[in-house]
Amino acid sequence: MASTGKAAGAGRSLSEYSEVQSSRLDVHLPLPCVLRNPFNLVDGPPSSAAGNPEEIAKLFPNLFGQPSAMLKSATTSGAAADQSLIIGVVLSGGQAPGGHNVISGIFDYLQQRTKGSTLYGFKGGPAGIMKCKYIELSEEFVYPYRNQGGFDMICSGRDKIETPEQFKQAEETAKKLDLDGLVVIGGDDSNTNACLLAENFRSKNLKTRVTGCPKTIDGDLKCKEVPTSFGFDTACKIYAEMIGNVMIDARSTGKYYHFVRLMGRAASHITLECALETHPNITIIGEEVAAKKQTLKNVTDYITEIICKRAELGYNYGVILIPEGLIDFIPEVQQLIAELNEILAHDVVDQEGTWKKKLCSQSLDLFEFLPPEIQEQLLLERDPHGNVQVARIETEKMLIQMVETELNKRKHEGKYKGQFQGQSHFFGYEGRCGLPSNFDANYCYALGYAAGALLHSGKTGLISSVGNLGAPVEEWTVGGTSLTSLMDVERRHGKFKPVIKKAMVELEGAPFKKFASLRDDWTLKNRYVNPGSVQFVGSTANAINETLILELGAQA
Amino acid sequence: MASTGKAAGAGRSLSEYSEVQSSRLDVHLPLPCVLRNPFNLVDGPPSSAAGNPEEIAKLFPNLFGQPSAMLKSATTSGAAADQSLIIGVVLSGGQAPGGHNVISGIFDYLQQRTKGSTLYGFKGGPAGIMKCKYIELSEEFVYPYRNQGGFDMICSGRDKIETPEQFKQAEETAKKLDLDGLVVIGGDDSNTNACLLAENFRSKNLKTRVTGCPKTIDGDLKCKEVPTSFGFDTACKIYAEMIGNVMIDARSTGKYYHFVRLMGRAASHITLECALETHPNITIIGEEVAAKKQTLKNVTDYITEIICKRAELGYNYGVILIPEGLIDFIPEVQQLIAELNEILAHDVVDQEGTWKKKLCSQSLDLFEFLPPEIQEQLLLERDPHGNVQVARIETEKMLIQMVETELNKRKHEGKYKGQFQGQSHFFGYEGRCGLPSNFDANYCYALGYAAGALLHSGKTGLISSVGNLGAPVEEWTVGGTSLTSLMDVERRHGKFKPVIKKAMVELEGAPFKKFASLRDDWTLKNRYVNPGSVQFVGSTANAINETLILELGAQA
Repeated sequence: MASTGKAAGAGRSLSEYSEVQSSRLDVHLPLPCVLRNPFNLVDGPPSSAAGNPEEIAKLFPNLFGQPSAMLKSATTSGAAADQSLIIGVVLSGGQAPGGHNVISGIFDYLQQRTKGSTLYGFKGGPAGIMKCKYIELSEEFVYPYRNQGGFDMICSGRDKIETPEQFKQAEETAKKLDLDGLVVIGGDDSNTNACLLAENFRSKNLKTRVTGCPKTIDGDLKCKEVPTSFGFDTACKIYAEMIGNVMIDARSTGKYYHFVRLMGRAASHITLECALETHPNITIIGEEVAAKKQTLKNVTDYITEIICKRAELGYNYGVILIPEGLIDFIPEVQQLIAELNEILAHDVVDQEGTWKKKLCSQSLDLFEFLPPEIQEQLLLERDPHGNVQVARIETEKMLIQMVETELNKRKHEGKYKGQFQGQSHFFGYEGRCGLPSNFDANYCYALGYAAGALLHSGKTGLISSVGNLGAPVEEWTVGGTSLTSLMDVERRHGKFKPVIKKAMVELEGAPFKKFASLRDDWTLKNRYVNPGSVQFVGSTANAINETLILELGAQA
Repeated sequence: MASTGKAAGAGRSLSEYSEVQSSRLDVHLPLPCVLRNPFNLVDGPPSSAAGNPEEIAKLFPNLFGQPSAMLKSATTSGAAADQSLIIGVVLSGGQAPGGHNVISGIFDYLQQRTKGSTLYGFKGGPAGIMKCKYIELSEEFVYPYRNQGGFDMICSGRDKIETPEQFKQAEETAKKLDLDGLVVIGGDDSNTNACLLAENFRSKNLKTRVTGCPKTIDGDLKCKEVPTSFGFDTACKIYAEMIGNVMIDARSTGKYYHFVRLMGRAASHITLECALETHPNITIIGEEVAAKKQTLKNVTDYITEIICKRAELGYNYGVILIPEGLIDFIPEVQQLIAELNEILAHDVVDQEGTWKKKLCSQSLDLFEFLPPEIQEQLLLERDPHGNVQVARIETEKMLIQMVETELNKRKHEGKYKGQFQGQSHFFGYEGRCGLPSNFDANYCYALGYAAGALLHSGKTGLISSVGNLGAPVEEWTVGGTSLTSLMDVERRHGKFKPVIKKAMVELEGAPFKKFASLRDDWTLKNRYVNPGSVQFVGSTANAINETLILELGAQA
């Protein structure tokens, strides 16, 4: 076996599988009809870019404008059945349920459609490509990971292939392994990187083609052709189970406000989806806070107001959802953090607080408004570059303390007679590596199988695209979307950089609008829904998430 | 309807049920054979007490020595079928999955076996008895709660019926409602209380009989006749799902040590069960720490040592389980907290720390050894009596910081070359109100049905006991165990108080011994098991928890 070093992770042993894990291994995954039979790849019209097409054209001279393509059933296959391929696959960025099924899908495509092909798994993310660390994937090696969560089959990493030297390393690996193709499974950044690789390989006349696959539990990599990123469905269902349980507890106990911070650093899709699945009393959506230019005080007051109204109805409990990225959406907090980064790079934080004089008056006010614990987190939690680590700030605890302070004030003024006890939660790591839901298992398998088909058909610079997801799997559409068509540019350090823009929560989109139409009702009445644990068999096993249903409904 | 005031909680509406919630409503619950047919109640030999029988005999002159009883199938029933009963039920203490099924079981027994009977639900725990706040339970009212988590049907409370006035109030309620019986669903304290009530009613010649039911996710109310308390199975499965997911994440990401604190304030059963279900790298069992008289430094060193060994093998990640009650098991910490309670009752905590001089030198050393955040929690988090709130101390964060400090020291000395990043979790509220597992659903229904049978047979002062739980439900045994036989006395404020001793983790018991025989293997190898989400249908839905299997196996 052409492996370098031992298997990624610690390997898996079937003898240590739980009953549920074992029961998932041999589950039959239905393929879209178009992937079951011979197919042709039909090109669409030439594509443009999501923004600044002239700049994108300059950045991708070989790929810009290429059409997206759709698979269509045919009597004989357009791709040669006797052609054997050498393909590499890499997992890039954070974990998401279903990654192993994408790999299984590629593997099975190659086994079933291209005799004698080889699939290499690059280990530990893009660094594995650069360092040529890989393992040859066999049926035996892949099997224990079928329908299982995690990325540990080949592990992932957050390195990027960016510099000329790094591109050179990737080329050398492609040449050394004689790669016909490479599948990059990742989020917006990783797919941008995939496209740069595709462009680079093409410009060097390498035969290596590159296909992307849309991964992220955050749900912020999506567009018309790519209706959702994989992992979002499972992660939200797991969080919604936990939230639903906490809700029933809140109602049964009658004395706690549960402040639940949910993973999703940039966009608030997870929080919105969980709200739609569980109907919490209060939900903060970062994009709305930003659009309304709210301050931390505004958010605190909004929560406090509802708690006071609920107390009048006799409810001294509730559940509040908060997106991880909340404070990134609040302009005044961004300003404070920017000033702190500047000051703390040069000054020592003295006990007397003379350093505070360097803050502008608005930032100083905000800093003084924050609870002492959070002040400390702002001053102490710093990354290796000395910057404040926003993700480590416990926003849920911060809000509990600020709300408590405000409630005490109102109590003192006779305006609030309730009792308040906050409980904080952060749900994140529990959802990234769960066993993929039936939807994610099927979707990922189709994405992987499609990636195989795209590479087999000679395509490069596309992202595997599976659509019509509201229909039964058999009717799903399959194709590849031109990655350059998803791109825009951002100016960084005086240069244009291509980016796939993160899909944020649209305040005019169907999911937010449904939420907005219902939230007042959820606020004072308790409309809690307990989704229960993810089921794999039976009548309740095949539901898809609310966000996707609503977005598909709005398109139809 | 003989209700006082509105329904407990906010009520439930079936239209807001999730698919999984709805799918559970009409699930057929199998009854043990002995409960399906006519039965006789067969008394065992006279009973004694768990300790100090003379004192227990004095405290329970009417009940002491009464036999436990078993239900035996008969051709005609020993209890009169035409007798209508008026029964009350109360939920006492913290939430546990399955409480609603106990009530459903009582309700169905009365409907099916005693024509024209009435079931009252006391609202908000024992306070509902004292204040005579109740609701009459109808089929319509009970239905939405069948097989659902939570206690919100009638809600629970933590009040106790202790003083002569409170007993008087309970008597008045019993008389006013003409109660033939009362079912108290609760933990060790609540069942002690149930027995005191039974004794009191008997001594006053009231007809009201009292039956207990063993409830607590903590699993610390159990004995030979009562093999497990309900809720433990479901809660552990929910936590184990979350731990399993975090494990796969740890292995996939390769850079975090997850420190997971698990609910279970007194005993470490939950932590032990979760360890047996998931195979973490490190598990701290409070009872072992106490038995070995370990210090906080010992525990820190134990964890640090393993992290260093794992780093040498290339593993800079892992999962560590910690029981909520850990610091209660460490004598030096108990001593420090006792001293702090004393000092802080009288002194102000001054910035200069002169108050520290009142600590004994061992306590001062320990205090200085603690991370600043924890020092602050010890000084600031106080209950209304001014005492340190041990449950609010974030032990998992404390250990992360102490381990980090120790690792930095070793790194400096060249003894550790790894990377350490801790992630903290507290799993508690997510598990108390989940949808009951099939085991808990069946077990609770049988417990409730049995409680109905015991009261119908004229018994008082027994705890509903369902046994042979390793066999199919049909073969489960059913009876009632004399509550006084579970009791010992404790001296409090110069008086003997009856107590049902909490069942702690037995270091000689089968579950701990199995854990102890395997943990070294789990430490350096990664034997992670991912139990997945609780399944309600299919081949994986009926497993029972490891603790119970092992304890039953050891008895057999």
